Amino acid sequence: MSRAAQLRARIAAGLAHAMSAHNPLSARLAEEAGFDAIWASGFELSAAYGVPDASLLSYGQHLEMTRAMAEQTALPVIADLDTGYGNAVNVMHVVGAYERAGVAAVVIEDKRFPKDTSLLAGGRQELVGTEEFTGKIAAALSVRRDAGFVVIARTEALIAGLGQGEALARARAYAAAGADLVLVHSKQRTPDEVMAFIAAWDGPVPLALVPTLYPDLDEARMRATGKVGLVIYGNHAIRAAVTAMQAVFRRIRAEGGIAGADRDIVAVEEIFRLQRVAEMKAAERRFIP
Amino acid sequence: MSRAAQLRARIAAGLAHAMSAHNPLSARLAEEAGFDAIWASGFELSAAYGVPDASLLSYGQHLEMTRAMAEQTALPVIADLDTGYGNAVNVMHVVGAYERAGVAAVVIEDKRFPKDTSLLAGGRQELVGTEEFTGKIAAALSVRRDAGFVVIARTEALIAGLGQGEALARARAYAAAGADLVLVHSKQRTPDEVMAFIAAWDGPVPLALVPTLYPDLDEARMRATGKVGLVIYGNHAIRAAVTAMQAVFRRIRAEGGIAGADRDIVAVEEIFRLQRVAEMKAAERRFIP
Amino acid sequence: MSRAAQLRARIAAGLAHAMSAHNPLSARLAEEAGFDAIWASGFELSAAYGVPDASLLSYGQHLEMTRAMAEQTALPVIADLDTGYGNAVNVMHVVGAYERAGVAAVVIEDKRFPKDTSLLAGGRQELVGTEEFTGKIAAALSVRRDAGFVVIARTEALIAGLGQGEALARARAYAAAGADLVLVHSKQRTPDEVMAFIAAWDGPVPLALVPTLYPDLDEARMRATGKVGLVIYGNHAIRAAVTAMQAVFRRIRAEGGIAGADRDIVAVEEIFRLQRVAEMKAAERRFIP
Amino acid sequence: MSRAAQLRARIAAGLAHAMSAHNPLSARLAEEAGFDAIWASGFELSAAYGVPDASLLSYGQHLEMTRAMAEQTALPVIADLDTGYGNAVNVMHVVGAYERAGVAAVVIEDKRFPKDTSLLAGGRQELVGTEEFTGKIAAALSVRRDAGFVVIARTEALIAGLGQGEALARARAYAAAGADLVLVHSKQRTPDEVMAFIAAWDGPVPLALVPTLYPDLDEARMRATGKVGLVIYGNHAIRAAVTAMQAVFRRIRAEGGIAGADRDIVAVEEIFRLQRVAEMKAAERRFIP
Repeated sequence: MSRAAQLRARIAAGLAHAMSAHNPLSARLAEEAGFDAIWASGFELSAAYGVPDASLLSYGQHLEMTRAMAEQTALPVIADLDTGYGNAVNVMHVVGAYERAGVAAVVIEDKRFPKDTSLLAGGRQELVGTEEFTGKIAAALSVRRDAGFVVIARTEALIAGLGQGEALARARAYAAAGADLVLVHSKQRTPDEVMAFIAAWDGPVPLALVPTLYPDLDEARMRATGKVGLVIYGNHAIRAAVTAMQAVFRRIRAEGGIAGADRDIVAVEEIFRLQRVAEMKAAERRFIP
Repeated sequence: MSRAAQLRARIAAGLAHAMSAHNPLSARLAEEAGFDAIWASGFELSAAYGVPDASLLSYGQHLEMTRAMAEQTALPVIADLDTGYGNAVNVMHVVGAYERAGVAAVVIEDKRFPKDTSLLAGGRQELVGTEEFTGKIAAALSVRRDAGFVVIARTEALIAGLGQGEALARARAYAAAGADLVLVHSKQRTPDEVMAFIAAWDGPVPLALVPTLYPDLDEARMRATGKVGLVIYGNHAIRAAVTAMQAVFRRIRAEGGIAGADRDIVAVEEIFRLQRVAEMKAAERRFIP
Repeated sequence: MSRAAQLRARIAAGLAHAMSAHNPLSARLAEEAGFDAIWASGFELSAAYGVPDASLLSYGQHLEMTRAMAEQTALPVIADLDTGYGNAVNVMHVVGAYERAGVAAVVIEDKRFPKDTSLLAGGRQELVGTEEFTGKIAAALSVRRDAGFVVIARTEALIAGLGQGEALARARAYAAAGADLVLVHSKQRTPDEVMAFIAAWDGPVPLALVPTLYPDLDEARMRATGKVGLVIYGNHAIRAAVTAMQAVFRRIRAEGGIAGADRDIVAVEEIFRLQRVAEMKAAERRFIP
Repeated sequence: MSRAAQLRARIAAGLAHAMSAHNPLSARLAEEAGFDAIWASGFELSAAYGVPDASLLSYGQHLEMTRAMAEQTALPVIADLDTGYGNAVNVMHVVGAYERAGVAAVVIEDKRFPKDTSLLAGGRQELVGTEEFTGKIAAALSVRRDAGFVVIARTEALIAGLGQGEALARARAYAAAGADLVLVHSKQRTPDEVMAFIAAWDGPVPLALVPTLYPDLDEARMRATGKVGLVIYGNHAIRAAVTAMQAVFRRIRAEGGIAGADRDIVAVEEIFRLQRVAEMKAAERRFIP
C-alpha cells in the first residue's frame, strides 16, 4: 500500500493526526510516538532557519528537507506548499517535484504570494480570487502520477476576516474543483469559529484543522463531528525543541559546565539509536572486508 | 573586529565556550544564552538528518547549513570539517568555501575518510599519518584570506587507542605545522586521560576540549590548567531537542490533543520573536506602500 | 579594488560589456575572451535546467550557481534577480544573500511575480506600480554592506507596451529612488524604440541595454550616445552551446562514432586547462607527502 | 517499461550508446539527437563548475543535477558515481539516493577516494583491493528497490598500469559479485589495449567502453565483437559547448557587438522550444483564468 493510500485509509477510518517536523529527526520522533503522518511545515522550517514564515526560504530548501523526511520515515508526509510559490504553472512545477520526492499529500493555500504567517496579529492576509485558486487546484490535480496522491486545499478566509459565508463558499468551490480535503484555518483563541464552520459544512469531502490557538479542541471532539478527516499539529516540534534548548543552554551557562544539564537530557547513545548506527554497523560487517 | 578576531580574543582571555547547533535557530538560542561561539557540528547535523555521523551527508549540506548559521547569528561560527572531505586538495577546496561562507574557524581531524563517530563503542578509528595530516594543516592555512582565520587541528589519537605518547607527538607536530589550537578528544568516561594530556602539554598553542563523556570537567577546572583555550559542547542542542520532542509528542498522543502539552512549551509568539518577525514588519512599513 | 568598484570604473570609463553565463565554466570563458563582467542570467540558467524562464527555478538554485561563478572568476558578476522573488521584504532577503555570495551588482525588474520571459511573443507582461517598485529599490539599497555595490533597476514598460512616456517616467522614478543604472528593455526587432528612449533620457544615471533582438546596435553606437553605461549580452553563451551540441550530437549519431566529431571540438586537455588541473597538481606536490 | 528495463533492452539488442550531459538541456539535446541513454558525467559537471574532476564537488551537487536530468528527459540516465564517495556504507547511501532520483543505472569505479581524472597524464591512480570493491558492488546491489536497476562496475586497472591480467581478474570478480556490466577504461591513444581486453573477455556480462582517446573505435567495430553492451561518449557535450562559446565570445569582442555572432547561433526561439515554453503557455490557458 502506498503512503498516499495509507493516509487516505487513516482519514477514512475517522481522523488522521499529523505532527509537524522541521527535519528528518523530528519526523522520526513523531513516527515513534505513534502519529499517523508528518506535517512538513513551512512555519517550522522557516523558524529552524531563523526567518519569518513569509515566503523567504526558497521552495528548494523546503523541498530538499521534505525529501529527506520522506526518505527517513515510513509515514506519509504532507507537504506544506504555502501558496504554491506562484501561479498555477508554478503549482504544477512544484507539486510534480514534491510527488517525486516521495510525499503523500500537499496543502496549497489561497493566500497571495508572498504569504505572511497566518497566526500573526497584524499579518498581511490577502487572498487570491476563488476562480484563480480553483485553477491552481486543477493544476495540482493534473500533474499527479499516482491518482491516490492527496491534494488538500486550504482556505484562509477566516484568517483574513472574510466571514463564514465566504469561507464556506470557497471551501465548496475547492471541493468541487477536486480537492481531497479542505483545510479551514482560524486564528480565534477559541474553537467557536471553526466549530461553526464545521456545523455548516455540507461539502463532499472531509475537513482538516490546525488547532494551534484553540488547543481545547481535542481529537475526541473532532471525531464526534463526523466531518474532520485530518488534524495537523503545526508547530509543536519546534516549540518543544526551543523550550528545552533554552533551558539547557541557560543551565550550562549558569553552572559553567555540563554536569547538571547532562542529567536532564537523553544520553548520546539515544542519538546513536535514532541515527540507526546499529544498522550501519551491520552493513559494515556485511560489506567491508 | 572580525568574528575570527572576536574568537581569538575570547581564547586569549582565558577560555572560549562554544555550543553545538544544527540549524540557525539553535545557533540563535546559544547566542541568546551567552555562549561565545557556535559549533557547527557534523554530529548534530547528521543526527538532524537521521543518519550516522560517518561522512554520509555531503559537505554541501553541512556548508549550506553552516552558512545559514553564520548569516543568522553574530557569534563566531566554528565549522566541524571532519577529515576535510578527502586529501589536502579537498581541504583547500572546502576551507576556502567555509571561509567565504562567513565562519571564523574550522576544525580538521586526523581520521581517515570516511570517518566514524568518535564516541561510538566499536567505531572504526583509523588515523592518517602525521605527515599526511600536517600537509592538510598547511593546505588549510594556505587558502586563508583573513590571516586571523582560525585553523584547529583535532587529533583522535586517544580515541583510536594510540596512547598519550602518540597523542602528544601528533599535537606537537600539528602546532608546529601552524595550527592555532589543538583539539584533543577522548572517549573515556572520566577526565583522567584528558587531564593527563593537558598536564603533559608543552606546545605553543592552547588546547580545545569536547567533554561530552566526562561532564564533571567544568570550565573552572579547564581554566585552572592555564592551557585550555576552547571548550566545545558538542551535542547538547540536539540532545535537549530530542528529550523535549519525545516528551511532548508522547503527551499529545496519550491525551489525544494538545491542551496539556501547550502548557509545557513556549507560545507560538516566542517563535515569532526568534524569527525576528518584528524586524520584518518594520521593513514592510518602511518599504511597502 | 572591489569587484563592484571595478564595475563602476568600467561604466564610468564609457561602456562596460557583460556576457551571460549559466555556469562557472561559461563565466570563465567570458573572462578569457575579455568581457568586463558576467551576467548571471536567469534565462540561461532556466534554459540549462530545461524549464521556461518564468520563476520556476527556486532562487536558491540561481543563488548557488551565481555564487559558484563569483568564486571561479575574477570578474564582477551581475546577478539577474528577476522581480526580487516577491515583495520588498523578499528583495532585502535575497539581495543580502547575493551580496554575501560575492556578486558586484544586482538587477531587479518591475514585473509582477511570477514573471514571464520578456522576449516571448504573447508572454504575460504585467508590471507592479511605480511606488511599489521604488520601495523595492529602496529596500535593496538598505541592505548593502558595501556602499559601492551596484543596484540596477530594470523597467519592462516598453516590453509591456506601455509606451515611451511611461518608460521614461518609471526610469526617472527609479533613478530618483537611488538606482545606480536603469536597464531599459525592448522586444522590437530594430533599435528604434530603444534609441528613442535614449535620446529622450535626461536622468542622472547611465542606462543599461540588452540588445538581443536588435543586434545591429553595437557598442560603438551605444558609446556614441554618451548615455549607455552597460550592455548585457543576455543569452549568447547558451545559444552558442546549443548550436554546437546539436551539430556534434547529430554527427556522432550519423557516423556511429566520434572519430569525425573529435576533429571539430577542443581536446580533452583544453577542458583540463579550464578546470585548472595544473594548479591542483601543484598543490598536490606541495601538500601531499 | 521502466527506464532501467529500456536500458537493459537496448544493451541486450546489441549496443546501447550514451551521451554525456552536464545539465538537463544537454541531456535533452542528446535525447533529440537519438541517443539511447544519458551519461550524467562527473567529469562534465566538474568542468561546468570550473574545478578538476577529483572528488571536489560534493555528491549532493551531482545528485541534484542528475535528478534534474532524469526529470527533464525520458531517456534512461546512467549516473557516474566515481568511487561511491567512500566505503561500502557510503555506496549504499548514495546508490539509494540516486535510484530514488530516477536514474536507471549507476557506475562505480575501483579507484580510491578522492579520485583523480582517469585520462590525465600523471594523475594519481590508486585502486582499492578487489575484495573491498566487490563488497561495494554487493552493497550497491543490496539497496536496489527495482531488481532491474543496473549496477555497472568500472575497473581502472589499465588506467593504473596494472596490466591485462589484473584487469581481467578484477572484471571477472566484479561480474561474479553481481555487476550487470563491467566498464573497462584505457588511456592509450589507440584501441589496441581495449581490443585485447575484449578479445580475452570470457565473463558472463557485457562490457562498457568510453573511447575518448581512441575515437576510431566506432560502434560498428564494438558491435562486431559481440561483447560490448554499452558505449559512453564521456565528454563531448562539454567539449562542443566550450568550442562554440570560445568562438562566439571572441567574435563578439572582436566585432564589438553581436550582429555577426547572431548569424552563427540558434535563435532565441530555439531556446524557447527547448524550454518547452509552448507547453507552459497551454497550461496557462487551461489553468489561469
